[in-house]
Amino acid sequence: MTGSLPANGNYIGVDVSGVTLRAALVSNAGEVVQRREAPLEREAVAAQIAGIVAELRDAAGIVAALGVGIPGLVNRQTDRVLVSTDLPHLVRGNLHTELMEATGLRVELENDANAGAYGEYQVGAGRGSRDMFYITIGMGIGGAIILDGKPWLGASGFAGEFGHITIDTEGIECVCGNTGCLETVASAPNIVRRTHERLYRDSTSSLSKLAVNKDFTAADIAREARAGDDFALMMVERTGKYIGAAVASVINLLNLERIVLGGGVMEAGDLILNPIIREAGRRAFQPCFEATQIVAAALGTDSVSIGAALLARDAATTMTR
Amino acid sequence: MTGSLPANGNYIGVDVSGVTLRAALVSNAGEVVQRREAPLEREAVAAQIAGIVAELRDAAGIVAALGVGIPGLVNRQTDRVLVSTDLPHLVRGNLHTELMEATGLRVELENDANAGAYGEYQVGAGRGSRDMFYITIGMGIGGAIILDGKPWLGASGFAGEFGHITIDTEGIECVCGNTGCLETVASAPNIVRRTHERLYRDSTSSLSKLAVNKDFTAADIAREARAGDDFALMMVERTGKYIGAAVASVINLLNLERIVLGGGVMEAGDLILNPIIREAGRRAFQPCFEATQIVAAALGTDSVSIGAALLARDAATTMTR
Repeated sequence: MTGSLPANGNYIGVDVSGVTLRAALVSNAGEVVQRREAPLEREAVAAQIAGIVAELRDAAGIVAALGVGIPGLVNRQTDRVLVSTDLPHLVRGNLHTELMEATGLRVELENDANAGAYGEYQVGAGRGSRDMFYITIGMGIGGAIILDGKPWLGASGFAGEFGHITIDTEGIECVCGNTGCLETVASAPNIVRRTHERLYRDSTSSLSKLAVNKDFTAADIAREARAGDDFALMMVERTGKYIGAAVASVINLLNLERIVLGGGVMEAGDLILNPIIREAGRRAFQPCFEATQIVAAALGTDSVSIGAALLARDAATTMTR
Repeated sequence: MTGSLPANGNYIGVDVSGVTLRAALVSNAGEVVQRREAPLEREAVAAQIAGIVAELRDAAGIVAALGVGIPGLVNRQTDRVLVSTDLPHLVRGNLHTELMEATGLRVELENDANAGAYGEYQVGAGRGSRDMFYITIGMGIGGAIILDGKPWLGASGFAGEFGHITIDTEGIECVCGNTGCLETVASAPNIVRRTHERLYRDSTSSLSKLAVNKDFTAADIAREARAGDDFALMMVERTGKYIGAAVASVINLLNLERIVLGGGVMEAGDLILNPIIREAGRRAFQPCFEATQIVAAALGTDSVSIGAALLARDAATTMTR
């Protein structure tokens, strides 16, 4: 089976960047053949991945390689995890070796934002562009850059730290130590915080009723905005304006063909995408803005697993040539 | 003479981006052998360059190619000037053809910031780095990116628009149409404007005395700061803080090894460089900041002419191989 050309096999991509592990069996062309989801077993990541790989292989026949998107940084020379705030034991262990031994497959580890970017670039909303900036906005805000078809990782692998662009020099403190980072206003928890802070001024909002009985989430705010609640809509639009100001800086600096926005917060759809585009257009240098398409991600929660699978595909194909 | 290997010849680089035309005869190793300066003849740029090239050739012997840094954008496929606010007739004419015909040399045209960046990268303050962001702060603010040793120009040639990063969402209007661009506070004319606006509050400053008889320049402010005037020093330091906030965004997005700052405003030296580094360190994501060296440009007013000569060298060498 290992004698088969990777181009004829399928690839498995796994996303361990959230509370849910998501795995996909992906064809050579980037189509998802099968999916698996399960609550992430944080203390037994390697064993859990190996188990799901075994399941998918039974269903799939030939599997040529495995890619894993992780919430952290990977040293590409050593395949070791260098930093992971969410899964710190990956730094002490050796996920790459464990997975190779457990599965017998060639294994690629990649930062989750880079993997998601690669998925969108290859078969999602980035398709057909030469250069792309990918932004994911959820519990945190991440970014990744594709230049000439390849991830641009930077001098130490941190390129694309979109969430920590300063957009308000007088803003509140961020976990990173800076003040006024985009993440302090536009990540899901910070959208909820800002909404709570302003809610007392508008007790007619349907969010006020929600807040009486239980806490609400950024997804609730987006839903109420779609349902026509003015206050919720204002919060979504203001969030879009903040994101748009940071997008304008990216456009001015990199003059890329396409900017792709994904993650849970973008599930508000055009209600948030349109204010982002408007504010970016207002703030960016016009010739740069006009060269850039700003679009929503297309792969939803599959972006990281598909991207990880395709990174594994391309690494395998390059090595066997 | 044209049968000689370019590697053995000298190169001529010309900078037509300011009120002074600067030309340099540059060795294959990037050393300046001879310099020429003259007031730029804005309506006869091609003829003026051809005349200076003839002078330098008489002094130099073999000249292998000519590079010209221009204040505008160049289409690299057609060698035509696409946009030039300062020298608009270059867009209507065909500088590349005129120079080839007048000199018989191979000619490379390049945007001034890109040429300056390449000079610093090859033989100046960027030497030894793999990736570099170059910032020039004078009458305007420009930038250019080097990735893996090559200029990164972006989808339409505008990459590196550092001056139009928003650093104050509530700031004043910029010529570009945005509000609160870095250029609205940190270019030389805007440093003078800000200084005038605040000067009435501090009549003990030596700048007050200067202002009585004549206008002052950003260079005067820097000189008074060096001489110990507290008010002038405060203005230089605040300018550095603004620049540092924008530098932090570059560091977060690109995670580059080195950031090189040049142009007239940087002639204030450490008085402005230190506040830039301090503010960037306060605002950037720490692992990105720690991977980045922030340094002053080393080539002074030669950066564009040296860079243009070396771009001509590398284009000629590549083509003859």
